[in-house]
Amino acid sequence: MADDRAGTPEQASFLAELLDRRLLLATAVAGVYGRGGALEEICERIGDMITRAGEPEEPEQLRFPPVLPRRDLEAVGYLKNFPHLAGSIFAFAGNESEAAEQYDRASRHEDWSEFQSMTELVLTPAACYPVYPAIAARGRLAAGGVTVDAGNAYVFRHEPSGDPARMQMFRQREIVRIGEPETVLAWRDLWRQRSPSLLREVGLEAELAVASDPFFGRGGRMLAASQREQALKFELLVPIAGPEPTAVASFNYHQDHFALAYGIELADGGCAHTACLGFGAERIALALFRAHGLEVGEWPTDVRRRLRLA
Amino acid sequence: MADDRAGTPEQASFLAELLDRRLLLATAVAGVYGRGGALEEICERIGDMITRAGEPEEPEQLRFPPVLPRRDLEAVGYLKNFPHLAGSIFAFAGNESEAAEQYDRASRHEDWSEFQSMTELVLTPAACYPVYPAIAARGRLAAGGVTVDAGNAYVFRHEPSGDPARMQMFRQREIVRIGEPETVLAWRDLWRQRSPSLLREVGLEAELAVASDPFFGRGGRMLAASQREQALKFELLVPIAGPEPTAVASFNYHQDHFALAYGIELADGGCAHTACLGFGAERIALALFRAHGLEVGEWPTDVRRRLRLA
Repeated sequence: MADDRAGTPEQASFLAELLDRRLLLATAVAGVYGRGGALEEICERIGDMITRAGEPEEPEQLRFPPVLPRRDLEAVGYLKNFPHLAGSIFAFAGNESEAAEQYDRASRHEDWSEFQSMTELVLTPAACYPVYPAIAARGRLAAGGVTVDAGNAYVFRHEPSGDPARMQMFRQREIVRIGEPETVLAWRDLWRQRSPSLLREVGLEAELAVASDPFFGRGGRMLAASQREQALKFELLVPIAGPEPTAVASFNYHQDHFALAYGIELADGGCAHTACLGFGAERIALALFRAHGLEVGEWPTDVRRRLRLA
Repeated sequence: MADDRAGTPEQASFLAELLDRRLLLATAVAGVYGRGGALEEICERIGDMITRAGEPEEPEQLRFPPVLPRRDLEAVGYLKNFPHLAGSIFAFAGNESEAAEQYDRASRHEDWSEFQSMTELVLTPAACYPVYPAIAARGRLAAGGVTVDAGNAYVFRHEPSGDPARMQMFRQREIVRIGEPETVLAWRDLWRQRSPSLLREVGLEAELAVASDPFFGRGGRMLAASQREQALKFELLVPIAGPEPTAVASFNYHQDHFALAYGIELADGGCAHTACLGFGAERIALALFRAHGLEVGEWPTDVRRRLRLA
């Protein structure tokens, strides 16, 4: 699982251009990059564009760091569905001689894992995950539920890759809706309408499609088929560096999955439903660089205006 | 090491107020919090204020995700000096039956660490760390070196605590100077002058002091004494929730430590020196809430104006 996957020649050549222009900066690990100022600014402007689009719903602004209590990952079955993508955090809890031995081995780039033990934390795998326990802790929802804007949050997926659009650590521009089933579905449908035009307005050929998650193992194929059949997940696909278009946003209707796990109750005591919407900030930025060229100053005037660059 | 440390009664009471006002949101783990919109906005405004202060040096803007290649941590001796604070990232690389067993144990909140193995990544312990290998990769510096603004970056310290100002995951607003020794020292001294007035202008009682890092173990005491003696580290101290003032910024002169580790060369082929400057975004925000009250709208007009809130 998660072996380094080489990119296609087209992906490798796009990555080389991005590195050459210092839009991305290579590190010693595939799929982990620094971001040059120009790319970072585009990620922020995309976030702002989505903020403006979501303002009518007056979301509550909440932000979370990129680590999550391990207990919260355990509670929602992530390790059943995506064990291959999860990252757990280990730390040292030994004495001075163990520290010295650990340091010696690390200095020789040898294995020092035996000195590390599991902490209470994991890396956040999806920007919506910390929202559910935080809302559950408040007690019953008000009528109509709540809309939470979780900002532009770093998430981790353990899948080293040579495709610049498949990073191990990237940002999801995330909004979450929690409430009555019909309220949540109406919100999901509103964004399903709103999002394709948002991306088309900045010159991206965005297509909406029913999708499924990359569930693990043989059982995962059944889960994926069921998810598609119930149309629980949609993605916005945009060409970046082929062969196929890349998902740059996804809309996920979880029904009562997260609400049951954390006990999120509606005003009348019933179980809430949840949905989330995540835009991949770096993927949309890469799609823009691919569509309009690597020099932001030369992008079409209307694209620059919509991103408030001009 | 890194046992949960209870906060003082004053810290516990300040934390309770912050949670009550939803400026911070509790999670299941001490020192890991969500951020309410009002606190997040202050963190951003502090970052912007520091950006404006640093504009005369025209820094290059670079950003890095909160994970770092393990090799980069191994190369600079972090595990010698701070093994108790480091976080390493583990992941699953097993088969379907191992995945099933891991999931079963996790669902019962039992130990599933045996199914996790060390990856090539660690959590970034300080926002300047990814900057050095990225600059080294470019080859020799131009004369005068380079100033890098690394933004408001999440870093990890494994020290669960009940003091709201001691988080496990927090943001450093980080600037790095790399160049000739005298250039780097002049830059460090410029910021040592500039920073206290920056914080005093927003109403914080900031005091500059020679400081040392929390080096590990018995040998660490000698390292700390030597660091103080050479005045390699300064901190800006501000009262938050006692008993003593809290370091909200630090200025670190590394001499040739990082440049030697990565081979950063001056224009003439000599070894570069480096220094960094990190403002603790959340700590400064907490200090502002402590000094001016929990309602941002009621902060003094000149403070709001300097933070561009008004």
